[in-house]
Amino acid sequence: MAEKTIDIAQPVLSRNERIADRLRTRFSESGVFVVNVLSSPGSGKTTTILASNERLRAAGLTCAVIEGDIASDVDALACKDAGMPAIQINTGGLCHLEGNMIEQAVDAFDTSVGLQDIDVIFIENVGNLVCPVDFDLGENLSVMILSVPEGDDKPLKYPGIFQHAGALLLNKVDVAAAFDFDLAEYNHVLDDLNPTAPRFEVSARHGQGMDAWCDWLLGQIEAPRV
Amino acid sequence: MAEKTIDIAQPVLSRNERIADRLRTRFSESGVFVVNVLSSPGSGKTTTILASNERLRAAGLTCAVIEGDIASDVDALACKDAGMPAIQINTGGLCHLEGNMIEQAVDAFDTSVGLQDIDVIFIENVGNLVCPVDFDLGENLSVMILSVPEGDDKPLKYPGIFQHAGALLLNKVDVAAAFDFDLAEYNHVLDDLNPTAPRFEVSARHGQGMDAWCDWLLGQIEAPRV
Repeated sequence: MAEKTIDIAQPVLSRNERIADRLRTRFSESGVFVVNVLSSPGSGKTTTILASNERLRAAGLTCAVIEGDIASDVDALACKDAGMPAIQINTGGLCHLEGNMIEQAVDAFDTSVGLQDIDVIFIENVGNLVCPVDFDLGENLSVMILSVPEGDDKPLKYPGIFQHAGALLLNKVDVAAAFDFDLAEYNHVLDDLNPTAPRFEVSARHGQGMDAWCDWLLGQIEAPRV
Repeated sequence: MAEKTIDIAQPVLSRNERIADRLRTRFSESGVFVVNVLSSPGSGKTTTILASNERLRAAGLTCAVIEGDIASDVDALACKDAGMPAIQINTGGLCHLEGNMIEQAVDAFDTSVGLQDIDVIFIENVGNLVCPVDFDLGENLSVMILSVPEGDDKPLKYPGIFQHAGALLLNKVDVAAAFDFDLAEYNHVLDDLNPTAPRFEVSARHGQGMDAWCDWLLGQIEAPRV
């Protein structure tokens, strides 16, 4: 059953690959580092982006954001309020972002701010632990955010996205006392699924762990890219 | 762009409709009431099903569960431990359940327990606020669970699933003090999106509000069905 749906999606996926390659070249030529931010709805993607922007801006970098949502523009407005160039994509029901949507958003940045004046673009994907993984957006890094209230069993249930991620953030650790999140079990499963991606325990809202995450991110941004 | 993907999915959807109609007839003839449980990953679907099962069992009803997950069988095992007949469906990457998967699970119940001896089947869908809405599973009721830590803006961002639901549970109200969830704003948006579905504020883990929800559910189960 699953194979049937995957077969149907194949032409869309390979078309997306071509667009992603085009985006990758464009990002590289403009010196933009792109972070694809993935999580369930309500894990703290926007709060993490805002808190990261603060720290990267203090390090002299200009960050912009592409907000992907089924509907509404509340996240893009919050980022604009924080002084970030922001483009809202409403997918109108689609459960993930695709390369052609990113291309349109990047065109809009190029016309408004100028792509060469942006150092980092955060792409906030649609809140979904399944579908976004299949769609390469030409990003340099994909970050998976799990929040403590969601439970320690999520890597077991949604292994694909945890395997795929280049960095793993555990958010909302400030409320850990109210939940029975088993950190050892979470880490144990990730040791199998994705032993190489660095893990950060953070509270995007209250700042805990955010310096460590942003220092590492800064290292990735400043590292020579191949 | 979104339209393109929706067009591609059309044959799958209409095939699913035919299966859903078949399931509806079968459920009706066997006197089974079916509840499709929808939410983000980690909102408390399994805990809600277990706590509802306890109360419905006390009212003399036999509940079974179909667990939908990308991978793992932890939820089905938890339900079996609680004495519920349970079937685990692993979608192998697919982000929602489809009618043909339910049909297989119902066949398995029919062979093992006997469908006529089951009063209620809970279907725990894959944790996803987008895709499951498009796939009718022949259910009598779909329940949408949002949890407080996810934030009050979710109905604004994922309107489709909140519009679609026949009942709306707000879970994890026991930890509300740790989060700035604006209940008035949440209700205000739902007044527009879905004024008719009853709303319950619950803590599936600690029991708050669960009697009210189960009393209402019992009323639905016992009401004459047309």
